[in-house]
This record gives sequence, structure tokens and C-alpha cells, in this order.
Amino acid sequence: VTRGPMNKGEICHKTQESLLSSASGYNNYRGILNWCVVMLVLNNARLFLENLLRYGVLVDPIQVISLFLHDPYSWPAACLLIVSNVFILVALYTERQLSKGSFSEPVGFLVHCINMAIMLTFPAAVVLLVPSMTPVGGAFVLGIYTILFLKLYSYKDVNMWCRELSTVKAKKLARSLSCDRKVCYPGNLTIRDMYYFVFAPTLCYELNFPRSPKIRTSFLLRRLFEMLFFIQLLVGLTQQWMIPIIQSSMKPLEDMDLSRMTERLLRLAVPNHLLWLIFFYWFFHSSMNFTAELLRFGDRQFYKDWWNSETVTYFWQNWNIPVHKWCLRHFYKPLLRRGFSKMVSQSAVFFLSAFFHEYLVSVPLRMFRLWAFTGMMAQLPLAWFVGRFLRGNYGNAAVWISLIIGQPFAVLMYVHDYYVLHFRQEAD
Amino acid sequence: VTRGPMNKGEICHKTQESLLSSASGYNNYRGILNWCVVMLVLNNARLFLENLLRYGVLVDPIQVISLFLHDPYSWPAACLLIVSNVFILVALYTERQLSKGSFSEPVGFLVHCINMAIMLTFPAAVVLLVPSMTPVGGAFVLGIYTILFLKLYSYKDVNMWCRELSTVKAKKLARSLSCDRKVCYPGNLTIRDMYYFVFAPTLCYELNFPRSPKIRTSFLLRRLFEMLFFIQLLVGLTQQWMIPIIQSSMKPLEDMDLSRMTERLLRLAVPNHLLWLIFFYWFFHSSMNFTAELLRFGDRQFYKDWWNSETVTYFWQNWNIPVHKWCLRHFYKPLLRRGFSKMVSQSAVFFLSAFFHEYLVSVPLRMFRLWAFTGMMAQLPLAWFVGRFLRGNYGNAAVWISLIIGQPFAVLMYVHDYYVLHFRQEAD
Repeated sequence: VTRGPMNKGEICHKTQESLLSSASGYNNYRGILNWCVVMLVLNNARLFLENLLRYGVLVDPIQVISLFLHDPYSWPAACLLIVSNVFILVALYTERQLSKGSFSEPVGFLVHCINMAIMLTFPAAVVLLVPSMTPVGGAFVLGIYTILFLKLYSYKDVNMWCRELSTVKAKKLARSLSCDRKVCYPGNLTIRDMYYFVFAPTLCYELNFPRSPKIRTSFLLRRLFEMLFFIQLLVGLTQQWMIPIIQSSMKPLEDMDLSRMTERLLRLAVPNHLLWLIFFYWFFHSSMNFTAELLRFGDRQFYKDWWNSETVTYFWQNWNIPVHKWCLRHFYKPLLRRGFSKMVSQSAVFFLSAFFHEYLVSVPLRMFRLWAFTGMMAQLPLAWFVGRFLRGNYGNAAVWISLIIGQPFAVLMYVHDYYVLHFRQEAD
Repeated sequence: VTRGPMNKGEICHKTQESLLSSASGYNNYRGILNWCVVMLVLNNARLFLENLLRYGVLVDPIQVISLFLHDPYSWPAACLLIVSNVFILVALYTERQLSKGSFSEPVGFLVHCINMAIMLTFPAAVVLLVPSMTPVGGAFVLGIYTILFLKLYSYKDVNMWCRELSTVKAKKLARSLSCDRKVCYPGNLTIRDMYYFVFAPTLCYELNFPRSPKIRTSFLLRRLFEMLFFIQLLVGLTQQWMIPIIQSSMKPLEDMDLSRMTERLLRLAVPNHLLWLIFFYWFFHSSMNFTAELLRFGDRQFYKDWWNSETVTYFWQNWNIPVHKWCLRHFYKPLLRRGFSKMVSQSAVFFLSAFFHEYLVSVPLRMFRLWAFTGMMAQLPLAWFVGRFLRGNYGNAAVWISLIIGQPFAVLMYVHDYYVLHFRQEAD
């Protein structure tokens, strides 16, 4: 008989608590994270297989084209995109006249206002009135016009600031806007500079954007591959997963069957959320980095770490940096400068955002229901509630839940109203 | 115009990478853990609601009783439990005779062997031959008998070690076994001491167990509440969630429809795994702590942190500490002492475990298929593979997957064979 592991007489029990008893003080649950990932993958693999067995392969690339085109001889969306150049050129022309003094500031301001008002109303009118415009084509065109609107607004503001600065001869401040670097006002008022800004992945104009030294081919190709792969995945998952659930939700929604509606909502929440995540990566990482690399645009901060958001406010400040920067620079800070309080200015930003969300959904669907507007405005009390009562991981979980549940709720509402408006009328 | 946040001319862009680009060096994804939890809860809330809508409320407490009793006038399981006292008393009687020298060591060993051989074969024979014994009742009784078998084996071993030690007068080693503390061999050979060990939540006998100073009433009541709650939950979830999936799996299994079988397997994996987790908590935390508190049994280490297992071996060494301790003390180390290699001894432990798994499943089902045996023996190559090729979180994920997928696979196999054997024969 030897001592150590071979010892027969070793003490076998000693007084100690179970790990899961609070008295044990144990708190290492790192394995639980892996458990979550494994369960998530398995759950969704099962759902994917179940879906495939029930509905077969529904992915159909031809159908995607038909979403943009009702009539192959009428391309209203493409025509609108070509027309958009008119607004760009009007903005550039106006700035040139202002820089030469041919337009006085009030006249220039008026021309800009008219130009931008038409930019919002004219495509909306076309989308509403041209019968061959599809909802998807309409949303796409209005999205492009909205981006252009924000860009030209920034263009007008920055050029005005440049004139103000040269007027007051505030050389110290002028540095950042123009003259220490390559291009000085009004040397920036060229077609080339204007179109670089139009295509650059930012909404905030600067005379001298930071530029990367060269195009990294492997980076460009990887982003291109991601773009192509994820757009396929988006279309495929929508056709295979979203559409069947939405179609099967119509009956419970019509009947206002509450438990079945909740079940459909939760069932829709998962694919909707995954599609949104894929869309986020596709648009804010792959596509924007691809464009930036191609244009040697240096600033790649298109998003920050919104996945760690512990407050709703943090989420909205970090998930879409181009829009956040624009709102801060051209809307929030100007409001502050005019003496509005932070509270009012913040609400105004959410109001503007709510307006554009509604604009981009209601006009293409030709249906005004204010669900998107309400959803955005509901962020204000939600932000207050989460910021006031929830901290740390609970706040983070609340942000995730509002994302996962809020979006499909709005989607179901619009789809239901669209269905009732179009298909029930036909049935009657 | 002031500097700071109000400054119109501030630089708006600077050269930087996107966070998700590998070049950014960013790696804080803490929010993703919360995302996993939220998605998991939502996914399962939906599944729960869907299940309730499809099947209605299936929970039925009366049915539970019928699992144990076919015929209310025949209680074979209860009778077997009463009979088990005979084996306990035979073991105690044999040890007393040995301590007095009335039995020589070989005679005592032979009596113990016969006693324990009958302990395994007699209840198995009753379960196989008595028609009113249900599979659940049978499994329950065989489980109790297996636990008793392991306990009495340990009892025999420890008392033998005590005699060996008093023979060689190795006082230093004897300390831990008996004499420095309260009870000394053969003073431990009492009915009271024997039954304390039979009910204590351990399989390893010691002459002086560590004792907690007093019964904490609030701790006891909390564990009692958990026991009652989780047993309800286990029965409810089994009736509401497991049984419908198993029933709907019979057709695909009969037809050997591979994609539908995989879908059913994944569908079964989630409730099966959750039930196993609840069972783990119910048995190893609530019930064992309850018993220990009631008996003032000090050593509450019934499990270690198996959820962080990065190897299969670590999992088997840590999820069930009473069995692990028994195997180490009464099987693995004795084998090492007899000169077997670690490799052979470890394989022998898995072989023993596989035997008891098979015994506890096949006999109550009256059906010998070796699925449980194969499942346990498959742990050996799996342990080798995971230990050899997977590290850290990947190893942990592999352990989880083997748990989540492996169990329902075996469950489906047994249920399928049981169904084919009993219900298809009836249909023919």
C-alpha cells in the first residue's frame, strides 16, 4: 500500500457546497455561451430543414427581376435614376453662381430649397402615379433620392460655411475645411468633385476627404464576393422563409386571432432578424467597404459596436454612422446653435428619421398607415424607459428584444394592410 | 461660431478601418451572448406556443401513475424495493461475521459475491417476467438496485481495507479510515450506520462522513420547492413536448426517410436536451442537496463545472461526481494496483458504465438492442478525437453537440424498436 492516488485509505468526502448553491461563490459559466451558439445553430438547422420539407425550394431568381419590372418596356425606376443627375447638376450650378456672387445668398438658398423640395416630391409623385412602378422598385428609387437629398443638403451647408469663413477671415477654422490641404474653396466646385461625393459612402460633404493610399485588390475582391454571396442569401431566405410565414399569417391577422398572431409574430421574428443582420453586414460592411476601396475613400467607420448597446440611444448613435454623422452635423448641432434644448433637438432628429422611414415605406406601397412613423417615434419613450430602468446586460437584452420584435411587428402590419387593400378587394 | 461640438468646420472624416475588418483588431462581442440568450428564449417561446396550439394541453398527472402501475392490485416495483432490505442486511451480517472471524476472508468474499450477483439478476428477472411491471417502474427499480449494488460494493471494500490495515498495524494510514475520528472499525457495523450510508447521497462508504453542523430549514425548503416544481415541469414537458414528437417520428423511421428522420432528430434534440438539463438540476442539485441537508451530510460536491468541459473525458469526470468517485476508488485504482495500464483501466470503466446503461434500459424495455451500450462505448473514440483535434471553445462546443445530438439519437432508436416490436405486431 503506497500513498498518493493508489492509497486505499484516502479520505473520500469533505465538507463543501454544491457549485450551483449561491454559498459556493462560483461564477464561471463560459461554457454556457458555447451552449447558446450550439443550440441556436441546431434550432435553426432544424427550422431550415423543416421549411425545405414543407415548402420545397422556393428560391427563384427570375421573380426578383419581376419585382422591379411589371412591364419590360417601361423602366420608370431606371428613368428616375437618370433624371436624378439634373438635381445634382442644379446644386453644383447654384453653388458656382453663389461662389462667383452671381446669386445672392437668399437667391441661392431659395434655388437650393426648390431643388431639394422637388427632389423629394417629384419621385414620390412618379412612384404614386406611374402604374408600372412596383413597390420594390419604388422603395429603391426613393432610397436613392433620399440619400442624394441628404448629400446635397450637406453640400449646400458646407459650401455656405466656407463662404462664411472666408467672409469673416477666420483662418484658424478654415484650415479644416479647405486651405491647408489640397483643395480650397471655390476650387472644389467641379463636376469631378461633386460626383466623387455622390458616389462616396458618406452623407457629409468635405472639401478634402481622407484617401487611402491605394486600392487593395484582395480586399476589394473579398468584399465583392461577400456582396454577391449575401445578396443571393438575402433573396433566397426571403423567398424560402419570409414569404411563406407572411402568407400564412394573413388568416390569423384577418380573424384577429391573438394567440395565433403572437405565434406568427414570433415565427416571423427569427428570419426577419437574421435577414436584417445579413442586410446590415451586406450593406454597411461589404458594399460600403467595396465602394470606399474602389474610390480610395479613407474613412471606413460605417458602424460602431452597436451589438454591445446597453441603451436604445447608444444603438441609434452607432448602428448607422453615415446617417448619425449627418444628423449630428446638419440637423442636431444647427438646432442647438439656434438655441433649442438637447431634448427638443433629439426629438426633432427622431421626428426627421420617422418622417423618412414613413416616406420610404408608405409611398412605394401607396398606402399611408404611419406604422413606420410610430415605430420610430416609439423609440423615444423606449429609450427613456431602457435608460431609466435597465442597466448593463439587461439594457443590452432590451435593445435586442426591441430590434427582434419591433421590426416584424411593423412588417406584419404593413403586409396585412397591403393584403387587405389589394387582394380582398379583388376577392369581393 | 465657437469651437467644440458647435464648430461647423470640424473635420468630419478620418482614415480608419471598419470594426468588422480583421485589420481593425476589434474583438468585443459581449452583446452577442445576450443576443444568443434572447434568440433562444424567443425561439423556444414560439415553439412552446406552436406546440400548445397544435396539440392543446396534454399534461395529465393521472397518466404518470399509470406508468408505474398497470394493475392497481399488483405493485411489483414497491415489493422489490421492500425486498432490497434483505440484501442490505445480508451485507451487514456478512461484515459482522468477518469482523468477528466467524467467516474467513474467502467465505465472506464468496457470500458478498453471491449476494451482489443476486442483487443484479433477481430484480432483472422480476422485471422481465412479471407482466404487470411497466417499463418506467422497471427502470426505477433497477436504478435503485444498481445504486444499492454500488453502495454495498463500496461497503464491502472499505470494511476489507479496515481489516487489512488493522492486520498490518499501519496506524498512520488507519487515521483517515477510522480511529482518529468518532467511529472505529468494527464499531461501524451497525444497522443505523448502514442505513445512513444507504440513504446518504454518495456511493462511497466511509466510517466517518463529514457532517454539517445543523439542518438549515430555509435551504431545505427551497430545495424541496425546487424538487416539486422541477418534477412537475419534467412530467409536463415530456407529455406536452417529447411524446408528440416521438409519436410523429414513427412513420419517417419506419420508412427510413433520411431527411425527415434528421428533421425529427433535430426537433427531438431540443426538448430532450432541456429535459436532461432540468433532470440534472432536479436530481444532482435539488434532490441530492435536500437529502444531504436532511441527513446533515457535509459533502455537497455532487457535480463539478462540466458545462465548461473542453474534452469529453472532462465531462465524464465532472458531471456525476458520486459515480465518478466510486469508479475511481473501487474500480479504476484497484485495476491500476493490479498492474493494468491507465488506457486499459479507463476503457474498463467505460465498459462497466456501458454495461449498466444497457442494463437500466434494455431490461425494463424487455428488448436487447445495445444502443445504450454502443453509445457509451462510442465515448472512447469520441474522447480521443475531441482531445486530439479540438481545443478550448471548439472542444466545449463538440461536447455540447455530442450531448445534444447523441442522446435523442439513442432515444429514437429505442422508441422505434419498441414501437416496431409491440405496436406493429398488434397491427399485423
